[in-house]
Amino acid sequence: MKIFGIDPGSERTGYGCVETDGRRHRLVICGALSAPAGTAFPERLLAIHSGLAALLAECRPDCVAIENIFHARNVRSALRLGHARGVALLAASAAGVPIVEYSPAEIKRAVVGFGRAEKQQVGQMVKLLLALDAPPSPHDAADAIAVALCHIHSATGPVAAAARGTAPSKLTSWRAYRP
Amino acid sequence: MKIFGIDPGSERTGYGCVETDGRRHRLVICGALSAPAGTAFPERLLAIHSGLAALLAECRPDCVAIENIFHARNVRSALRLGHARGVALLAASAAGVPIVEYSPAEIKRAVVGFGRAEKQQVGQMVKLLLALDAPPSPHDAADAIAVALCHIHSATGPVAAAARGTAPSKLTSWRAYRP
Repeated sequence: MKIFGIDPGSERTGYGCVETDGRRHRLVICGALSAPAGTAFPERLLAIHSGLAALLAECRPDCVAIENIFHARNVRSALRLGHARGVALLAASAAGVPIVEYSPAEIKRAVVGFGRAEKQQVGQMVKLLLALDAPPSPHDAADAIAVALCHIHSATGPVAAAARGTAPSKLTSWRAYRP
Repeated sequence: MKIFGIDPGSERTGYGCVETDGRRHRLVICGALSAPAGTAFPERLLAIHSGLAALLAECRPDCVAIENIFHARNVRSALRLGHARGVALLAASAAGVPIVEYSPAEIKRAVVGFGRAEKQQVGQMVKLLLALDAPPSPHDAADAIAVALCHIHSATGPVAAAARGTAPSKLTSWRAYRP
């Protein structure tokens, strides 16, 4: 099963594709889409959309997992973020791939075990879970991989436990799991 | 010159294409794009995007004029609106058409002469300026036409004056014009 995670942003949109057999996870590709400084906003959206469309065509994932957003600093930043997330959702929808959404707290809880984890902790856990040499850079890529891992976690059981080679007992819901 | 106006919205996205020789304006097409009730949000975005892409290919406008948004009831509605406006901007950007943006107050001021005009007044002025039998329905279509007229106004002089067959004297900027 291949999960394509997206961390949408108007400046940088992170992406990360993870392949899993339910126990072992492998990073297929990750990175961040951005446009050169000074690029007009509509062209910036075009870069996000065409970049994601090309990556989805290349990776052919079984599912797209995308961060859901309910909060923003203010209405203006919510509007900008909404634009970026809109074109990201559009790319996934046009590719005909099922879309699942997770809140930032759900993602952090699934990957780090703590809903208010720092970006650095997310990066470290992504490195550990995927046996990487270093946390993915930029952090938008790590965040996107974390969304994909969150979905794998919710679909197959705690990723953290799988990474340690132990399965927690009496687990009814991944939400209840704390490493 | 053909201007394609867009009034973005996550429930309904209005559009209206107006052709002008600088003095006389003609409505080419107008309407609103929406998806059946219960349609998932990503498919809703897909309907807006593919609808606009098809209309832009059909109309081949010289310019796309789109309402700019700075305010929303709250962060959540700003996020939703941002998604819809994002895919609308994307359609215009992908069509390679220049994009101009106007605030709701600029649009109302240009068309009605008053930045806080009611929706009904906008509809009535659109009817008058384009010599229609009735105000366009739904109001999203009228609002989209108003964005197009606002751009014509700013590019060629006050549309309201043109409609009355009189040109205001000593006009340095349309922004300074109050009928």
